[in-house]
Parts: sequence; structure tokens; C-alpha cells
Amino acid sequence: MREALGIHILIEFYECDPETLKSVNNIEKTFLKAADEAGAKVVTSNFHQFQPYGVSGVVVIEESHFTIHTWPEHNYAAVDLFYCDPSVDGDKAIKVIKDALKSKNFSTMELKRGTFVSYADTVENKEQFVEKETA
Amino acid sequence: MREALGIHILIEFYECDPETLKSVNNIEKTFLKAADEAGAKVVTSNFHQFQPYGVSGVVVIEESHFTIHTWPEHNYAAVDLFYCDPSVDGDKAIKVIKDALKSKNFSTMELKRGTFVSYADTVENKEQFVEKETA
Repeated sequence: MREALGIHILIEFYECDPETLKSVNNIEKTFLKAADEAGAKVVTSNFHQFQPYGVSGVVVIEESHFTIHTWPEHNYAAVDLFYCDPSVDGDKAIKVIKDALKSKNFSTMELKRGTFVSYADTVENKEQFVEKETA
Repeated sequence: MREALGIHILIEFYECDPETLKSVNNIEKTFLKAADEAGAKVVTSNFHQFQPYGVSGVVVIEESHFTIHTWPEHNYAAVDLFYCDPSVDGDKAIKVIKDALKSKNFSTMELKRGTFVSYADTVENKEQFVEKETA
């Protein structure tokens, strides 16, 4: 496995309950609960209600960030969970958010951020890269 | 082209100037300039200095968000630009950030968020999908 500085999970929540997606209070409560259950340490958060509808929310955590943007008119929310500490449990956050949004259809994609493919001297498996180069 | 609600550009900035990555003031100034030059409307922003080093920054824009996390010890920064209005010019933001970080090596990946492959009735090109289904 290649070393990475951060894990980034992108989640597409389709077929959500539109009333939940419209409520900035619901979204904020859900997101702070998700961060808590995931074991993330919240630094600050901002949630905004847009007109005529839609919510944007950002939770800055010590381990990076959680974000959400909702489109109630499409029953859709885009969520990102980015964290640099493997003790954060993204799956627990996803479950909290999915249940709150009542999403009947969702997909996730997990990316590694900061993988340093070309910079073996900055990662733990330096020897492995060096061996390959000199083999 | 498939319709999408949002554009999400993920950028890996390698080989940056570590002193710039350490400075929360520099990062904040750079990010607000990037949002401005991209034509994004800033709602609020938060930037945090971590100990012993590293900066996290979030700019909530009316069109979604810009985020950054820096690892000065690896000369690396992870940047995300997420926007739901095609009038926002992500490339202009990338140029501002790249120049400020003095990144000698970077990569970008552009994703569509909210594409509704299976939910043709919620997107503008409904007729196109229906035609295909009945052809």
C-alpha cells in the first residue's frame, strides 16, 4: 500500500428527503454528530442557508475537513470527508449522514491525497522504491 | 456531456515553498485572492494554524467551497475547488495558488458531482434520456 498524507472520501447522496436538505439546523446538527461519532476533533464550523433553498456546511476538524452542499430540488447532497488521521472513522460519519438525509441511493469514492509517488525519500517505504530503482 | 450540479477540482501541489505553507497569513491572503480572481463570491472563511506547523483553510463561497491543507514538512498542499456555477474560473484560482506556493510540481483532477445518471427526470436533458430509452 502506498503511503498517503490524507484520506478523502467523496460521497454522492441521491434520493434524499428534500425537507431535511432544506434545513440548515438539521444539516448542522447532523454534521456535528457525524464528526463526533467519527472521532474527529472539531475546530470550527460554518453552515449557511441559501435562497430559495440549499445548505452549505463546512466543519474544520483538526484532522482536515468535512463539507456538505445540498440541492433539495434534486434530492441530492454532495459530501466530502477529508482526514489525515487514520483514527478518524469515516464510515461512522457516513452512516450518521445517510440516516439523517434518508438517502435511498448513495455512492462513495475514496482517494488518497499526498501520495508522493516520485518522492520516495519523504515516505516510509523509501527502501522499497530504492530497491526497485537499482534492481 | 452529462449534466452535473457541481465541478470539483482536486489539486495536489508538490514541491512547494515550505515557509509559505507554514504561514496562515500567506495562505489566507492567497486563498481570498484566488476566490476573487476566480469570480467566486465569498460568504465566509476560516484559516487555522496548527502546531508544530501546517495550515487548514476553508473559504465558503456562494458557489460551494475552496479548501486547503498544508504539510510544510513534505512541501505539500492539498487543495479542493468545488463550485456549482460555471462562471467561476477554477483555472484562475489554481494559477494564483500555484504561484503563491511556488509549487514546482502539481496535478489536478476534475470531477463532476451530482450527475444523476439514473435519474433522468431530475435533469435538464430529460428528453435526451427518454429518447434513448424508447429508441
